[in-house]
Amino acid sequence: MDLLPKCDANYVPLTPLTFLNRAAQVYASRTSVIYEGTRFTWRQTDHRCRRLASSLRSLNIVKNDVVSVLAPNVPAMYEMHFAVPMAGAVLNTINTRLDAKTIATILRHSEAKIFFVDYQFVPLAREALRLLMDDHSQECVSSESSFPLVIVIDDIDSPTGVRLGELEYEQLIHKGNPNYVPEHIEDECDPIALNYTSGTTSEPKGVVYSHRGAYLSTLSLILGWEMGSEPVYLWSLPMFHCNGWTFTWGTAARGGTNVCLRNTTAYDMYRNISLHKVTHMCCAPIVFNILLEAKPHEKRQITSPVQVLTGGAPPPASLLQKIEPLGFHVTHAYGLTEATGPALVCEWQAKWNQLPQEDQAKLKARQGISILTLADVDVKDLTTMTSVPRDGKTIGEIVLRGSSIMKGYFKDPNATSKAFKNGWFATGDVGVIHPDGYLEIKDRSKDVIISGGENISSVELESVLYRHPRILEAAVVAMPHPLWGETPCAFVALKKNANGKTDDLKEADIISYCRKNLPHFMVPKKVEFLPELPKTATGKIQKFQLRTLAQTFEVSKSSSENQKLSNKKSGQSDQVNTKIPRYITETHENVLALSRL
Amino acid sequence: MDLLPKCDANYVPLTPLTFLNRAAQVYASRTSVIYEGTRFTWRQTDHRCRRLASSLRSLNIVKNDVVSVLAPNVPAMYEMHFAVPMAGAVLNTINTRLDAKTIATILRHSEAKIFFVDYQFVPLAREALRLLMDDHSQECVSSESSFPLVIVIDDIDSPTGVRLGELEYEQLIHKGNPNYVPEHIEDECDPIALNYTSGTTSEPKGVVYSHRGAYLSTLSLILGWEMGSEPVYLWSLPMFHCNGWTFTWGTAARGGTNVCLRNTTAYDMYRNISLHKVTHMCCAPIVFNILLEAKPHEKRQITSPVQVLTGGAPPPASLLQKIEPLGFHVTHAYGLTEATGPALVCEWQAKWNQLPQEDQAKLKARQGISILTLADVDVKDLTTMTSVPRDGKTIGEIVLRGSSIMKGYFKDPNATSKAFKNGWFATGDVGVIHPDGYLEIKDRSKDVIISGGENISSVELESVLYRHPRILEAAVVAMPHPLWGETPCAFVALKKNANGKTDDLKEADIISYCRKNLPHFMVPKKVEFLPELPKTATGKIQKFQLRTLAQTFEVSKSSSENQKLSNKKSGQSDQVNTKIPRYITETHENVLALSRL
Repeated sequence: MDLLPKCDANYVPLTPLTFLNRAAQVYASRTSVIYEGTRFTWRQTDHRCRRLASSLRSLNIVKNDVVSVLAPNVPAMYEMHFAVPMAGAVLNTINTRLDAKTIATILRHSEAKIFFVDYQFVPLAREALRLLMDDHSQECVSSESSFPLVIVIDDIDSPTGVRLGELEYEQLIHKGNPNYVPEHIEDECDPIALNYTSGTTSEPKGVVYSHRGAYLSTLSLILGWEMGSEPVYLWSLPMFHCNGWTFTWGTAARGGTNVCLRNTTAYDMYRNISLHKVTHMCCAPIVFNILLEAKPHEKRQITSPVQVLTGGAPPPASLLQKIEPLGFHVTHAYGLTEATGPALVCEWQAKWNQLPQEDQAKLKARQGISILTLADVDVKDLTTMTSVPRDGKTIGEIVLRGSSIMKGYFKDPNATSKAFKNGWFATGDVGVIHPDGYLEIKDRSKDVIISGGENISSVELESVLYRHPRILEAAVVAMPHPLWGETPCAFVALKKNANGKTDDLKEADIISYCRKNLPHFMVPKKVEFLPELPKTATGKIQKFQLRTLAQTFEVSKSSSENQKLSNKKSGQSDQVNTKIPRYITETHENVLALSRL
Repeated sequence: MDLLPKCDANYVPLTPLTFLNRAAQVYASRTSVIYEGTRFTWRQTDHRCRRLASSLRSLNIVKNDVVSVLAPNVPAMYEMHFAVPMAGAVLNTINTRLDAKTIATILRHSEAKIFFVDYQFVPLAREALRLLMDDHSQECVSSESSFPLVIVIDDIDSPTGVRLGELEYEQLIHKGNPNYVPEHIEDECDPIALNYTSGTTSEPKGVVYSHRGAYLSTLSLILGWEMGSEPVYLWSLPMFHCNGWTFTWGTAARGGTNVCLRNTTAYDMYRNISLHKVTHMCCAPIVFNILLEAKPHEKRQITSPVQVLTGGAPPPASLLQKIEPLGFHVTHAYGLTEATGPALVCEWQAKWNQLPQEDQAKLKARQGISILTLADVDVKDLTTMTSVPRDGKTIGEIVLRGSSIMKGYFKDPNATSKAFKNGWFATGDVGVIHPDGYLEIKDRSKDVIISGGENISSVELESVLYRHPRILEAAVVAMPHPLWGETPCAFVALKKNANGKTDDLKEADIISYCRKNLPHFMVPKKVEFLPELPKTATGKIQKFQLRTLAQTFEVSKSSSENQKLSNKKSGQSDQVNTKIPRYITETHENVLALSRL
C-alpha cells in the first residue's frame, strides 16, 4: 500500500488560502467584510486579494519575502492575511501600540520588503523609518538593498488624503489582476506569517508560522469554540495578535461576516454589535471593563447572545458575573504566540450549568483542554521530565506538542533550540491538571514568588485582591526580602468611592483584608497604590515594570520573621525546589504567552 | 525561514489515533460506548484498544498487515477502528450483507492476516473461508503463508458461546497490555483502512485510506455537520460503510457517546434514541422508511431533535416532509468510498427557513458544498476539461481534489491511474452547479439514459414517480429501443391501497401520470411492477440488476416515434454529445459512489 504515490488529486498542501478559494465559490454572494459604510462579498474579497497579490508580485515581492503592516482592524488588514501569502510572501503584522524604536527593530530584523501603514499611524511609522534610516547610515548599509517600500493605507470609508510616499493601498488593488493565480505552495510547512513577541525582557523575537500550522489551528478553533456557519464576527481583538487568533482565516472557512473596527471603544463595539447582529467576538478580559463601564448613551441592548472567546488572562469571576447577564456568553482560552494563538479552550460541560454561579466562574477561569489539532499537552516536572499527577495540586511546567506549534524563532537558532526540548515546546507557564483533565495555570514561571522556600502564585493572590469591592486593578510581583529572598508586593488601582475619591483606603486595610482571605505567608508585605497600572498595547498589565519598581522597595525584617525563617531553613526549601523547577525562569524568560501580549 | 527544521514538537503526523489519546485524557470519565447493558468510558475504551493492539502485535501483526472484520455495529467493531492502526496495521471492514464468494475474494485480495467474525456471521464466514481454502488448494498455495487467523467476536452483552476456531475477542483484550504504546506513524500518508467497493460491475476494488485523509475528513464532517461537544451518536449507519462516514473517529474527537446497535430495526432505533437521548445519527434515506413505518408499539416520542446526516441518495421531499415533524432534523451529504465518505454537505442557510416546505425539500435534496478539507470540487466537461457554467443547468462530471481523497486502489495501478486524471479524482457522477455554488447531482454517468440523443436523468424521472401517492419505490433504467437506442423503463413497487392490495394501478395509469408531469421524451415507455425493488446491503436499489432485466424487454416502434427520430437525426445529437461526455461511462464504470453502496 506504500506503493500508492501521492498525486495532485489526493495530496494538496494544507493552507488557509483554500478557505478563501472555497468561500469565493460557495459563499460568493454572502457579505465578507463590513466596515462602516463599506461592504464586500466573498467573491469581491477574493478578487481584491488576488489583485493585491498580483500587485505585490509586480512590486518584486518573491517567495518568503516579508511584508509588514502597521494597521488597526480595517479591511486592508484583513485582506492582507490572504493576499500576502497568495503572493508567496510572509505576513508580518506589527502591534500598533509599540514604540517607534521597537517597530524599527522589527523592520530591520524581519528585512521587510514592503511596509504598509494605516494613515492613522503615519507619524509613528515615519519616526520608526527615521530610526531605521539612521541605523542604515551608521552601519553603512546600502539603503536600497533592504529599506522597505512604504505604502499607506488610507481609510477606505472616509479617505483622508494622508500619504507617506507615493503609493496607496487602493491603487494596488485597482492595478492588480482579479484572476491572478496564487503562487503554488510547494511545502505546507512553508512560512505564512511572522509575529513578533513584545519583548518585555529582551529584543522582540520573530515567531514563524507555517501554512500547515495556521490551517490546523484555524480548524481547531472553529471546532473548539463551536463556531457554526454564517457567523457575524466583530473584530474587537487586534488582527496583529496571532493573526486574530486565526479567526482572520476562520471567518472565511465558515463563510462569516467580518465586522471591522478601527477603535475598540464601547460606543463602536455596542453600535456594531447591535447594527450587524454580531454573533462572535474575541477579546482580552480588559475589554469587558470597557463594555461594562460604557456610558448609557454608548450602550445598546444585546438582543441575541454574543459568543465571546477571551484569553490573555483568566476572566475574573466578578467580571463574568457582570458581563454574562448583558448577553455576552464567555468561553475562556489559553495560548501563546508560539502556539499560533489559543492552544487550550475551556470547553463547557452541560452538567456545569447546574452549579452555583460562583462555581461556574471558577470552572470557566480554568484554561481547559487541548484544541483538537494539538497532538498533546502535558504538565511536566522538568527536573524529572515526568508528568505530574492529575490531582489539581501538583504544579509543573506546561508543555505542548503538535503541528500548530511555530516553526521556530526567525534568525534565532539558540532561542529555537531552547524552546524545543525533548520533543516538546516548553511554554514557561506553570500549572496543574485537574482530575477531569482540565488544566489550570498557576503562574508564569517567572511570576511565581518564592518566599522562604514557599511557592506563592501571584495569580492566586491577585484573584483575592480582585474580589475586594474597591479594587479596580491588581498585580502582585516579587520584591526582595533580606531574609525570605522574595516576598509579595501588591500594586493596586482603586475604584472611586461615593465621593469620587480613592484616598480613603490604606495599605493596612488591604493587608488586613488579605490576612482574612489568604494563608499568612502569602499576604503581601507591601501594597503600593497607583492611579492606573502600566499596560501593554493589548491592555495586559506590564509586570516587568512593576518588578523593576519593586526591586527598589525595602522591607525590614521583624523578629517573628527571623524566627519563621530559621524554621524554614531547617529543611523545607529542598522539597520545594523539586516542586517548581526554578531554572525555567531563566531559560524561558522570553517565551511569550498570550498573557504577556 | 526555510531553515527552521521540523521537530517532534512542531510536526506530528496527522492521524485519528490522536483523537482517542486526547479523549482518554480530557474526556476520561465520560461514557464512550453503550451497547445494551454494556458501558465504557473513554479511559476504558483507550485501555481496551491498547490491550487489543498489543495482542495483535503478539499475534505477529506488523506494519501494513491487513486485519479484516465481519461484524455489525458492536463495541468490538468500534474499538478496532483505533486498535488495528495502533498496532500499525490496516483495518478492512467487510460489508456483512455480501455473499460468501465476495467475502472470500476480499480476504484473498487483501491478504488479510487476521479475520475477526461476529458470532452472528459465523456461518457466512465459514462458507467464505471454505471457498478461500478451495482456492488455496487449487492454486497450490501454502495455506499457512496467507490463510488468515480467525477470531470470533462473541456478543459482549449476552455471550452465546458460538466459536470459530480457538480465539475470542475478549481473550485478546484480557491478555493485552493497557499501557501499550501505539506503533509510531512514520508518515501520515501511511494506510489506515482498506474499504472494498461493492463491485456491482466487476471484482471488488480495495480503496486505501491514509491516516492524513481519515484525520482531515473527520474534522471536516464534524465541522460540516456542526456536531458540537458531547454528542450522543446512534450507530444506525454501518461502520463498514466508509468507516461510518468517519464518525467512528469523529465521536472520539468530540468526546461523544457511541450507542452501538446490532440491528437497525425500528424498535431498536426508537428504543435507543429515547433511552440514551440520542442527538446524532447517520443513515441512508431508506432508514426513514423503517422509522416511518414502525408499528405503534415500536415507536417512541422524540423529545429533543435528532440531527440526521443522510446520504447515498437525495432524500425525497415526500420523506422529508414526513420525517422532520417527528423530530429528525435532516442534513444531506454526498460522497464516495474513494473520498473517505461524504465530500459535500448541503449546508443549510438561515434564510431558507422562510421558504415553503416544498422549496426547502428541494434545496435540501441538493448535494451541497465541499467539506472544508476538500481542496476543490468542480464540474467539468471532460471533453474540454473546462468548468461548466454555474447556471444550474449545464451538466458535466463531478471531480474532486484534496488530501481526503483515497491513496488509490490496492494492487490495481490501472484503475488508480484511471481514477486520477489531470490532477483530479473523477467521480463518475454527473451534475450541475447552481448559481449559489451548491452542486446537484443529476445522475451516475452510467445511469443517464440517452434516448435519440436526448439526455434523460433517471434521477429526475424517479423523483416525479416518488411524488405519486401510491408509489413506494421507483427506479428508472435504460432499456434498448430499436430506434432511439435507449428509452426509459420504470420499475415500481406500490403501496397497498385501502383494501390492502396493489393490483388496482396499471401501467397505463403511471404512464398517463408521467405524461402530465414530464416532457414527452422523458416518459417511460415501459412500467414494470415488482413487489419490492432489489437492494444492496445498505438498502440502495441495485440498478444493475434492473438494467439486466430491462435488456430483455422489447419495445415496438410506432410510426410517430419514427417521425420524431428522423427530426432528431437531422442534427441535434452532436450538440447533445458535448453536453455529456459519453465515454466516462466506460472508463468510470467501477467508481463506487455512496449512492452505489
